Amino acid sequence: MSVRIIQIHETDNVAIPVEAVSKGAILEGGLTALDDIPQGHKIALRPLAAGEPVIRYGAVIGYLKQAANAGAWINETMIEVPPPPDLDNMPWGTASAAALPVPPRTVFRGYDIPGASFAGIRNILAIMPAVQCVSGVVNAAVEKMKRELLPRFPQVDDIVPLNHAYGCGVAMNVKDSAIWIGSLKNLLRNPNFGGEIMVVGLGCEMLTPDMLLDPEENAPENVIILQECRGFTGMIDAILSMAEKKLHRLNARKRTELPLSKLCVGMQCGGSDAFSGITSNPVAGYASDLLAGAGAAVLFSETTEVRDGVHLIAARCAGEEAAKKLAAEMRWYDAYLRAGGADRTANPSPGNKKGGLATIIEKALGCIAKSGTAPVTEVLSPGERPSQRGLIFAGAPASDMVCGAQQLASGIVLQVFMTGRGTPYGLASAPVIKVSSRTILKELWPDLIDLNAGTIAEGSETIAEAGLRLFNMIIDAASGDYKPWAERYKLHNDLTIFNPAPIT
Amino acid sequence: MSVRIIQIHETDNVAIPVEAVSKGAILEGGLTALDDIPQGHKIALRPLAAGEPVIRYGAVIGYLKQAANAGAWINETMIEVPPPPDLDNMPWGTASAAALPVPPRTVFRGYDIPGASFAGIRNILAIMPAVQCVSGVVNAAVEKMKRELLPRFPQVDDIVPLNHAYGCGVAMNVKDSAIWIGSLKNLLRNPNFGGEIMVVGLGCEMLTPDMLLDPEENAPENVIILQECRGFTGMIDAILSMAEKKLHRLNARKRTELPLSKLCVGMQCGGSDAFSGITSNPVAGYASDLLAGAGAAVLFSETTEVRDGVHLIAARCAGEEAAKKLAAEMRWYDAYLRAGGADRTANPSPGNKKGGLATIIEKALGCIAKSGTAPVTEVLSPGERPSQRGLIFAGAPASDMVCGAQQLASGIVLQVFMTGRGTPYGLASAPVIKVSSRTILKELWPDLIDLNAGTIAEGSETIAEAGLRLFNMIIDAASGDYKPWAERYKLHNDLTIFNPAPIT
Repeated sequence: MSVRIIQIHETDNVAIPVEAVSKGAILEGGLTALDDIPQGHKIALRPLAAGEPVIRYGAVIGYLKQAANAGAWINETMIEVPPPPDLDNMPWGTASAAALPVPPRTVFRGYDIPGASFAGIRNILAIMPAVQCVSGVVNAAVEKMKRELLPRFPQVDDIVPLNHAYGCGVAMNVKDSAIWIGSLKNLLRNPNFGGEIMVVGLGCEMLTPDMLLDPEENAPENVIILQECRGFTGMIDAILSMAEKKLHRLNARKRTELPLSKLCVGMQCGGSDAFSGITSNPVAGYASDLLAGAGAAVLFSETTEVRDGVHLIAARCAGEEAAKKLAAEMRWYDAYLRAGGADRTANPSPGNKKGGLATIIEKALGCIAKSGTAPVTEVLSPGERPSQRGLIFAGAPASDMVCGAQQLASGIVLQVFMTGRGTPYGLASAPVIKVSSRTILKELWPDLIDLNAGTIAEGSETIAEAGLRLFNMIIDAASGDYKPWAERYKLHNDLTIFNPAPIT
Repeated sequence: MSVRIIQIHETDNVAIPVEAVSKGAILEGGLTALDDIPQGHKIALRPLAAGEPVIRYGAVIGYLKQAANAGAWINETMIEVPPPPDLDNMPWGTASAAALPVPPRTVFRGYDIPGASFAGIRNILAIMPAVQCVSGVVNAAVEKMKRELLPRFPQVDDIVPLNHAYGCGVAMNVKDSAIWIGSLKNLLRNPNFGGEIMVVGLGCEMLTPDMLLDPEENAPENVIILQECRGFTGMIDAILSMAEKKLHRLNARKRTELPLSKLCVGMQCGGSDAFSGITSNPVAGYASDLLAGAGAAVLFSETTEVRDGVHLIAARCAGEEAAKKLAAEMRWYDAYLRAGGADRTANPSPGNKKGGLATIIEKALGCIAKSGTAPVTEVLSPGERPSQRGLIFAGAPASDMVCGAQQLASGIVLQVFMTGRGTPYGLASAPVIKVSSRTILKELWPDLIDLNAGTIAEGSETIAEAGLRLFNMIIDAASGDYKPWAERYKLHNDLTIFNPAPIT
């Protein structure tokens, strides 16, 4: 029996085997493997000359340094990476807008917030330190509250400290500090926190509460200053007393049926492999199209991993404003990396390469697959909140933890996380649905992976079928009818708000 | 009765009142207050002309923008800050080395580590994630271990996850990445962890375990790779099983009497006010001199807050190598701030200013007071480990959390933290003794402040007397006979390792 190989686009000159093949093995279509080739790594479909482009997803992922015969293993050491796409005058709105698939469901059951654009899907009391100095006290208070208070408020899902590393000892008045300050300000308003505001300051920090809060919010019922409390016990008492009032209000909230336009979902991938771009990410893209078609807001990010396919996203921008901001976000990141002496070749990671991702271009094409086919209605700077619905590019680093935190700041209430190599990622403030790119990962981690998209590579399910499964899982999770594994285990990574400004 | 004022140096043309004074109040020496002057703020001792230097600690802290009469309040809006000291050709070894005070104790009871330069003072199992992705799992495992394992090992003080935000999604191959990678590598070897190494990796991270570990350490008994575990339960089982073996070994350790040359202590200040430089910091400086005289290593840091007094530290450098490295560390930080568009004028913080610290120079002079009078034997880059004993400048940002993490990486087993405005700061990996600069803070926070140096301002204790109290408290805490408040409450801030390299 020949080994199944996957050619994504008809113009591709490489394909990938769905399992590891030994030298001499016969592949689907009659090709003979000239090398031992790991699962998901590229194999030449025809003889390729030195300097010839390597084509996958119908796009050039690099140029061959040396000639290769049909059936040869094409790995990362053999490919030269060209410069990234030019950001000046990128054509926009040129991609033919295919009709989006019709969503079978258009409502979910969430926690509406009067006057707010989006609804919550969990009922969480969040407490934000104005400065990292106070996080030890906040953590101690949260621990005590989870033991002593939370059981009395069964409609409240959790109490979450929004810890961060800033507020003092960090440059405040430089241009880039607007990113972390704005992100914290928006994070505080994530719809999963039900509109309740609770800030704990020290009293001498640089990030004064008025920088986080609107004037009417900056009041004694929302802000505790530890330097005004009597000792540690006074601090704990003050926090518990304020929290209790807010828990009472949160506990009275009820889910109601809401249109999907009240839902803001984030898409992210991490620990990607060569299958991510053909299984889990296109499945997420299909679910994204269903959500966008139903009027929800769907955010995707990872600036450094979109950079090499940015022309494809620009082509899908619905307006000039979005296209211009997209270029501006990319330019900002190019300059940020350059200032630190870094460039895009630090990506892909060793694990990505092991998984078959040879170049940042190949990784970018796979990364972008999660955005489906919908037009891009808006582009956000890191931590900004959307004003539109549909598919939105929310600029943020690709670092999983930073991207997660930034999307939370932008207001996502649920994240879908696609993984190839596997990561036990989770967020405390929003449920995370994890999608595996390969069946083997779902088998190894049955209690961490929520949905397996490896079925696509095996040919047992179409992208639309798995995408619909994911769409339904998203609505179920949003409605409180499904708890992703990471949420069940209360498994979550530390929040890491993006700060490009210097530490002082 | 006239209000007590403190003039630090005979050449000072300003002094500070030990309590707030009202306009018209008569001050010690017969001066009349011309304004309402807050506690600790500067008062002109004689008529000062526009452009005249403002002198405190016998040093120029800035130049008057406008003339002021004797008795006038001299605040931050009235002072122009000159450029920082030139770093080229700073004279070194020129400060007359006063004889250090004679330490009354020369031993402590600590946990010796065969072959190691320094001993531990607590017996902690530390677990380091190789990448932030795994910290959710590590946290869950630590929680379970604290409940189920730790009670069986009464000689072990704690289990601490060494969480950090890096390992992936961060530039790895740029010059500045050596700081966070080297810091993590050294942090793993903090003497309070008893020489046990435990690293949890994911399997596809950029920071591979061989970058943290020596070849002989990089072995299955020290490293767990989550992508090789069967699901979440398999991960937890693997971590608990490895930890149990290490807990057995740690539990068998005993304190023995050791010379103070086996002790490495860190000094830091935070939330400073105008009293910090005349009460708590000089008290810490006296204790530092006692420790240095007894052969201990004493680290002080806060590059941005030493910068404006760097010539004073250079003058105390015992050798040219230290002086040159001191200038290099300062130059690096100047460039780092400049690259981010920041400069030193972002410091002092609003809280510092409220507390009477008008300029970064005044803050620096107070900050440096904690280094006492001992010669500087060595200068370290952020996170480097000392090779000498005595007083050592360990380059690190002034941000409390970052400085704490970097000093832990450099190997401190105990930190002394001086605070004026007050912070509930603590570290999980090392006890922190908190020293208040004012009595009022000790009265407000009796269960957070370990030692009150406000007595100096009141004239009820000398610096030597309070310094000796602090020295004894340090030895007692090191020997396990005293638990600082933050340790009793398990009050600690998140670790924040310094990373000047870009996030990707």
